[in-house]
Parts: sequence; structure tokens; C-alpha cells
Amino acid sequence: MLAFVTLSVLLAVTPTLAVWPVPRQYSTGATPLRLSPSFYISIKGLNSPPQDLQAAVTRTTTYLRNDKLQALVPDRGASSANAVRGAKALDSLSVSLTSTAKVRSISEEAVDDIEARVEGYTLTIPSDGSAATLTANSTLGLFRGLTTFGQLWYDLDGSTYTLQAPFNIVDSPAYPYRGLMLDTARNYFPVADIKRTLDAMSWINTLHWHVVDAQSFPLVVPGFTELSSTGAYSASQVYSTADVQDIVSYAAARGINVMAEIDTPGHTSVIARSHPEHIACFEASPWTQFANEPPAGQLRLASASTTNFTTSLLKAAAALFPSKTFSTGGDELNANCYNKDAATQADLAAQKKTLNQALDTFTQAIHKGLRDVGKRAVVWEEMVIDHPVTLANDTIALVWISSANAATVAQKGFKFIHAASDYFYLDCGGGGWVGQNPNGNSWCDPFKTWQKSYSFNPTANLTEAQKKLVLGGQHLLWTEQAGPTNLDSIVWPRAASAAEVFWSGPGGDIGKALPRLHDVSFRFVQRGVRAIPLQPLWCALRPGKCDLNA
Amino acid sequence: MLAFVTLSVLLAVTPTLAVWPVPRQYSTGATPLRLSPSFYISIKGLNSPPQDLQAAVTRTTTYLRNDKLQALVPDRGASSANAVRGAKALDSLSVSLTSTAKVRSISEEAVDDIEARVEGYTLTIPSDGSAATLTANSTLGLFRGLTTFGQLWYDLDGSTYTLQAPFNIVDSPAYPYRGLMLDTARNYFPVADIKRTLDAMSWINTLHWHVVDAQSFPLVVPGFTELSSTGAYSASQVYSTADVQDIVSYAAARGINVMAEIDTPGHTSVIARSHPEHIACFEASPWTQFANEPPAGQLRLASASTTNFTTSLLKAAAALFPSKTFSTGGDELNANCYNKDAATQADLAAQKKTLNQALDTFTQAIHKGLRDVGKRAVVWEEMVIDHPVTLANDTIALVWISSANAATVAQKGFKFIHAASDYFYLDCGGGGWVGQNPNGNSWCDPFKTWQKSYSFNPTANLTEAQKKLVLGGQHLLWTEQAGPTNLDSIVWPRAASAAEVFWSGPGGDIGKALPRLHDVSFRFVQRGVRAIPLQPLWCALRPGKCDLNA
Repeated sequence: MLAFVTLSVLLAVTPTLAVWPVPRQYSTGATPLRLSPSFYISIKGLNSPPQDLQAAVTRTTTYLRNDKLQALVPDRGASSANAVRGAKALDSLSVSLTSTAKVRSISEEAVDDIEARVEGYTLTIPSDGSAATLTANSTLGLFRGLTTFGQLWYDLDGSTYTLQAPFNIVDSPAYPYRGLMLDTARNYFPVADIKRTLDAMSWINTLHWHVVDAQSFPLVVPGFTELSSTGAYSASQVYSTADVQDIVSYAAARGINVMAEIDTPGHTSVIARSHPEHIACFEASPWTQFANEPPAGQLRLASASTTNFTTSLLKAAAALFPSKTFSTGGDELNANCYNKDAATQADLAAQKKTLNQALDTFTQAIHKGLRDVGKRAVVWEEMVIDHPVTLANDTIALVWISSANAATVAQKGFKFIHAASDYFYLDCGGGGWVGQNPNGNSWCDPFKTWQKSYSFNPTANLTEAQKKLVLGGQHLLWTEQAGPTNLDSIVWPRAASAAEVFWSGPGGDIGKALPRLHDVSFRFVQRGVRAIPLQPLWCALRPGKCDLNA
Repeated sequence: MLAFVTLSVLLAVTPTLAVWPVPRQYSTGATPLRLSPSFYISIKGLNSPPQDLQAAVTRTTTYLRNDKLQALVPDRGASSANAVRGAKALDSLSVSLTSTAKVRSISEEAVDDIEARVEGYTLTIPSDGSAATLTANSTLGLFRGLTTFGQLWYDLDGSTYTLQAPFNIVDSPAYPYRGLMLDTARNYFPVADIKRTLDAMSWINTLHWHVVDAQSFPLVVPGFTELSSTGAYSASQVYSTADVQDIVSYAAARGINVMAEIDTPGHTSVIARSHPEHIACFEASPWTQFANEPPAGQLRLASASTTNFTTSLLKAAAALFPSKTFSTGGDELNANCYNKDAATQADLAAQKKTLNQALDTFTQAIHKGLRDVGKRAVVWEEMVIDHPVTLANDTIALVWISSANAATVAQKGFKFIHAASDYFYLDCGGGGWVGQNPNGNSWCDPFKTWQKSYSFNPTANLTEAQKKLVLGGQHLLWTEQAGPTNLDSIVWPRAASAAEVFWSGPGGDIGKALPRLHDVSFRFVQRGVRAIPLQPLWCALRPGKCDLNA
């Protein structure tokens, strides 16, 4: 505990560390240090280090060589030329697991259940040129430490340097879940776009992949290939089993779990193309009476046949992903769709069940199916708040309609993920997509700024006991008006904002965060991610000068 | 006149033409037609056609070959395969000037004064495979016709086809000015980004280039190179004279005039880096008291030396551009900056002038300087509405603060360009850029949707006589939060919206426009412009199905 106290004291007097997310405990100095031209990263104490750890080391070395990011100061570092020239050279970073740690790959650890992940690390960089050291209790922690190490350096005429040595960083996340949701059903994203997003997500540990929806079914599910062959936008706009394995392994090697979602029983219109028998109110008109978005269509949840089909589909889809969690959705259920569906009405009458009773039976069945194959269910908040559905205690709820609903979910006793539209929806405020909508603004105006999500308090209105139910949070990109052309510019650097709230903890100062977020943007651009500028460059080079009242 | 009547009658019964902007008069049929594999475009009746016209023909042929745009229907055209296979083949498009037309290049005609441009054309494509014809009174008109021709075709398995022959199109713009403003001072854009924007702008005839501002001075002005060498963000973030010539000629060959702006007397802080004697309240703090944006700084308008300097600078800058118009800005003048500036107060006292009288003298001087080199002045609306400044009758005002101010400008008798923030500001609604601004929303929320700008009425609240003062309008991109990474996604296809209002005329139906705007987006992407999707692909393929109440 003494170390932490010391570091906390140092914190008050040391300059801002240009690292995102900001480590939980750190100190920096004021000594220039540069990377030796022969700088290397060595993994110590392991006879055969996991391949993905070796790859992460190689990737970090490549970033260090290729970032070529100039310091965000007016002269871009030129006035530090003498200091950099005269600086001690750092020859190496030594990476090692603590002696008690079990040796597992990053990829194995990344897909551990949410609460079981170990992501902390300790990074020490002396100012005298002696070897830097990175230690952790897990390869996942080592990976997080490498990510931090890779952000500490600037370029000046070919020298890779810092002015802030020595560094002492002791870090671990405030919350175990930091996610990003991507919808690949409204519009399709090639695998390369998803991989580029995963590269940018390195401190976000979950890709919540909303892979299919009413509009298209791009996921090729073994045993259910008719869904994608009839439901994908085209034969090339699919995710084959090889694509999924590629994405999952690419993600896992970067410390990211892919938590897939097949939304049920709503948002399933597209299934009718191959299985019309399972879908009620298929493309019914006017769609506003049958669904929140066109096209309408919901799984016939009162049908035993449809329930079996759905259970088998979910099990087959879940088998594609090593993730311990899998989302069955459950948002925006439309009662009118079922009220007008003769088949559902006949099923309900025969079973003497209400719609909610049928939903309970359906949900229990599909969740049991997932549990049988080792998966923990994730649901949107309505399944906890609005419907009297029996859920296993370990079910995770996604709070999306309003951040105010987190307290309601907590009262029900379920663990949950913050994903509220009023803070974290990346698509809001960019104009509405519904046709013949005169002014065309979006339903969740205004635009959710990075400042807004950065100000989020994950435990607002929660009791001490309820606070333990918060697993973390995430930004979300629904893609009605997004595609490969604007993916990066909508997501980055904004989605980094929530990642810091849930890694470093809430309560950060937006004024102090902005310069570091500029660093994120500029470094991302150097790495091929089309992050946007948050200010005129004049401001980005002069922290605070463009603040209100500066 | 008979031809128009016939076409107008036809209009009511023919399907939507997937062309943007929609021609003023047209008819289409229902006969399939494909381009012959040996299809060519020939320029007739000219011994040596202008080189830029030949280049435009070559470019159109390249687009026709490379666009490979599938029809936006659910089966992407597959069900038309037999019709396409059996279709007559179009061998050629014959392009010619009317016999009375004077032969000038597109580039010469593009930089004619605003009211003098001739952009109409007549395009006829028979359904029987006989040659299509394009005629116009100007090469600029021929270029517009080629742009239309290049949008009529889809791809199906390598065939380039339409299902809507014959076409009879008689077209000319409703307003002579359709612009797009780009700010290259808050953040810098490489020449390649500007050229890509010019390629996408083919029916927008003016790039209003807000090239410098308080934050940076990227324009290399002969005789004033110290401004860019001290004021550009870096030595590489400049527009050299060769760059400007490249941009200007690239634009002109595409029918676009580059109307540059050096904003005065405000927005000039950066000039103090090389000429501190000319700038009042340089980087004064708090900036909110001295400027609408940091950094503060305004030209010392009461100084004869500063007035001479500014006049010479504007003349030298204007000489870089063949445009007949040049903007001297004039927005957001801050009186407090001058009230607190001892030098300005001394000058005013010595001359026994009020600030407004000094502004009048200053403005008359700089405008006379421009007039002496053949340039017509353009100003932001404050110079007409807020300040008692003497302006030449041919001065053009840019209405930006509010569309409601158009009527006020019209009452003063000046021609004007619609550029109002409440309809046409592309940067609104994307979050604010000022630091320490807790929720961080933008000053001109909400986001201006394409539907909003499409609904704009250019002659609202104007008398019949005042209506003649409307030159046209434009979208504008201020780049506090824009750079090369999000230029395309902010601008396209949204900026096409105003272009149609001011070419085709106002009053268009957003429901009918949306499918054509999808075509713009998808065709742009094929041509390398990162336009965004406006709807889920499911909707884009099914016009009307995602309308409210569909």
C-alpha cells in the first residue's frame, strides 16, 4: 500500500501522462530519454512464450518504429532537440510474468468470463537508460502494459523519445467490462474494417458484435446456412466460418473477447426468407405498427417448433465463438405483431398462455440451450424490466433505453453493462434515416459528445450493494447511417472516452483528458485508423488555450 | 416552348430518373438499352476541341467503364438479365456546340462572372441504338451534360445498361451560383483531398475556399511568403503557388470556379507572427472577450499602414485566382479588441474617426484594390447588415448567421448567396470543440440534415424584385472538427442536397429525392469518394419502404 501512497503523492506534481486510458496509479519525471536504435523487447522467464504474446511484442516494436508521432506542442518538439540528443538511451524493455502466474496465452485469457479476467500490470522505466520492466500476473496484463508502453513516445527527426522519464506505473481496470458494440446488419462491414477497429480497441476488451438483425443476416451459421444465403445483402456480404475464426482470433490476440448477439424474438424479419413458418408479421405494413424499424417480423415465440429452431440456431451460432457470454437480445418486442398473427394466437390459445408466459417459456428454453453449451446469457434491459421472464442469476443485462434504468435493473439484482443511448450511442445526432421525415433529425438527438460520455457516473443512484452489479460499459454503433466509409470517423476517438471511464474510473476532468485524447487521435491516424480531429490543430498543440474562459 | 410543354406532360408518367441534380425538363421511357462494348463519345463540328472538353469526354468514358454500379433494387438487377441481353446497343454519344456558340474552353467559361455562366444543355438518347446527342451553347453546358450522361447507367455482369430509354433532357440551372465552402485554416487538407472534393462537385460550380484564418495561414502569397512561413501549421502544410494553380486548373476543367477568401479585418491573428504591427489584441485572454474563436487578433483597420498592407496582400492573393470574385470576409468583428488596443485608439483619435468610420475607410480601400485588379468583392452579411460600410453595387453578400437575414440583405439591394448556418452548416451538431465545455454540444445544434437543406426556400420573404438578388447557395464546412479523415463523410452526400435546390429549383419532394441521393452516394463510393450511407442497405434497395407510415 505504501507504493500506492507514494505514487498518489507524486501524481499531484508530475505533468500529464499522454496515455489513454490514464493508469490508475503512476508517476512521471522530467528527464529526457530516447529509445536506442537497437531497442528491443525481451520476454523473460518463459521457455516458450505464448505465440500471441510474442506477436504483441513484435507489434509494439513496429508501432514504436512506425508511429512517427510528433509531440503535440507548437514547435512539434523542435526546441527539445538538444535534450533529445543528449538523452540517455533505453536499450530494452524486459517483459515477464510474476513467478506465481500460470502461463496462458493472451487469447485464452481474453475469453475468460468477464469477472475472471486479470488485466493489471506494473511498468517501470528508469531515467538512466537501464532496462525498463513490465510485469503482470497474466499475459493479458502484459499486453495492456505493452499498449501503455507504446503510447509514451514521440518522434523528433527520427529519434523516438520522451521528456518524462522515469515512469512508474501500477495499473489495473476499475471495471472488468469495457466494450464496443458494432451492428453489421443494417449495413455490412468487410472483415478488414472490423480488424482495423479491433486494432484500435486495444484497451477495450469486448467487441459486442450485433451481427444480424431484421435487415440482413450476414453470419454463416453451420447447419443454418440458408439464413445467410437468403438473408445476406449479397453472396459476398457474409461472414463465413473462416471469417469469424479470423475475427475471433485476431481479437483474442489483442485481448478482446467477441461477444456475439443474435437478437430474439424481435429483429428477426430476415429469417422469414428461408423459414417463413417461424416469423410473425413478416414485412407487415405500416411497419410503425409492428416494429421500431422496418422491416417488421418476429419469431413466433409461442410455437414449440420455432422455439426449438431458435435454440438450435443460437447453440450453433454460439459455438462459433469462444466467448463465455452470448447475447440473445430481447429488445423492442412488439405485442401488436403477435396480436395480429393468427398462428401465434392459435398457439397461445392451445397452450392457454398469455404472451408474456409464452415469452418466458421461449426465453427459458433458448437460455437453457446456451447454458448447455457453456454460455452465459446477455439480454437487453426490457427482458429484466418490462417482461416477467425467468432469468438465471448470472444473466447480464444491457441498459440501453436510458441511463436512469440502470437503477431499476440493479433493483432486480442482475449484473449489467452500461450502454445507455443518452450517453453512449454513437449514431445519435447525425440525422435520421427514416424516409419522408421532413427535418430528418435522429430519435436520440443530440449527438453524444466524448465529453458527455466522459462525464458518466457508473454508480449514480445505486446502493453500495448494487454498485457491485456494474460490470462496465460501452459505446454502441447502430449502423443505419454508417458503413465502411464513416466507421472510423464516427467511432474514434469518441469511443475511447467510455473506455477510460470504465478502465481508469469515473470522475476524470475533461480539460485534462482532452490533450491525451488528441494524442489518441493523432496516434491512431499514424496507425491507419481514420480518427477525427477534435479541435483546430492550433488548439490541439496548445492545451487549455481553447478552453472556455482561457 | 412546345418542347417544354411536351416534356412536362411526359414527366408525370415516367419513372424517376436516377440523376442528381434532377434535370429541369426531362422524359424517360421503359426500353432497355446498353452501351456497346465499343461505345465512344465523339466531339463533332470542332476542328480542335478544347483540351479540357476532350479530357472531360475521356473522364466520362472512364467512369462509364469503371463505375460498375449495380442498380439499387433488391436483386441488384439480376431479374433484368434477359432484358439487358436483348437490349439494343448504343454505339456513341455525339457531343456538339450549337452553331452560334463561341468556342471557349470549359476552364475559361467556369471562371466567367457568376451571372454570365451558360450551363444549359440538351441530351437525347434514342431507344433504338442510334447515336445519342448532347448539344449546348457552351463547353460548360456540354460538361454538365456529360455529368448527367455518366449517371444514367448501371452494371449487370459487365453490361452497362439502362431500363429507361429513350431519354430526352433539356436542362439548365435555376440559379447561377451553387457552391461549397471549405475551411483549410482550422485544420489543413492536402491537395489530394481538395481534388477529390472537386471531382465530386461536378454540378456545384464554385469552391468557396476559406483558405486562411486566425489559426493558420497555409496560402503562400507571392510577396508575402512570411505569412505562410510563420503562419502555416508546418512547412509541409501549405498551398504553394504551384498547388494553387493545380487546384484552380483542376477545378476549372470540371466547371468549377475557385472563389478564395481572406477574411478581414477579424480572423487574422496569425498575421501577427510575421507582422505584429498590424494586429490588435493578439492572442488576448480570455479569448471570449476578444473573438468568437481563439486565438484573438484583428487587423488594425484604423492604421493607414495596415490598410495598405492588407490591400497589397489581397491583390497579391487574388492574382493567384482567375475568379472574378474574391471574398474579403468581414464576419464577427469584435469591437472590444479595438477598444482595448492603444494603437487603434490613437489612430482613431488622430483621424477623428469612429470605429465604424475607420471600417468604412478600410473596406473601401481594400475593395478598391481588388476592383483595380478586376475583382468583384464578396463579404459576409455583417458588412451589409451591421456596419454602415460603403459597398459597390455589385458586391455580393454571404448570408450565414440566419436564413432570416436574407430578406434584410435583400432590402439593402445587394445580390447574395444563401449560406445560412440554420440550413447549410455541415459542421453543426457534431459536438462542440471548445475545451472545458461539459456537454460539448455545438453552437449551431442540431445537425443539419440533407432533408433540412433540401427543404430550403431561396425566395422566402422576398418581394418579386428582391428574388432577382438571389445568386444561389451553398453548404459550408468549417473545420474545427474536420480533417482529411472525415472530410468526405461530413460533406457527402449531404452537400449534394443544396446543389439540387439551386440547380433544379426548390420545392422537391424528399421522398422522391432519397432514392436518387442513394445513387449519388453509391456512385461516389465507386469513384473513390467516401460518401456515407443514408439508410440501411435494405431501405436503399427498396425506395419508400422505410418511409414513415410505409
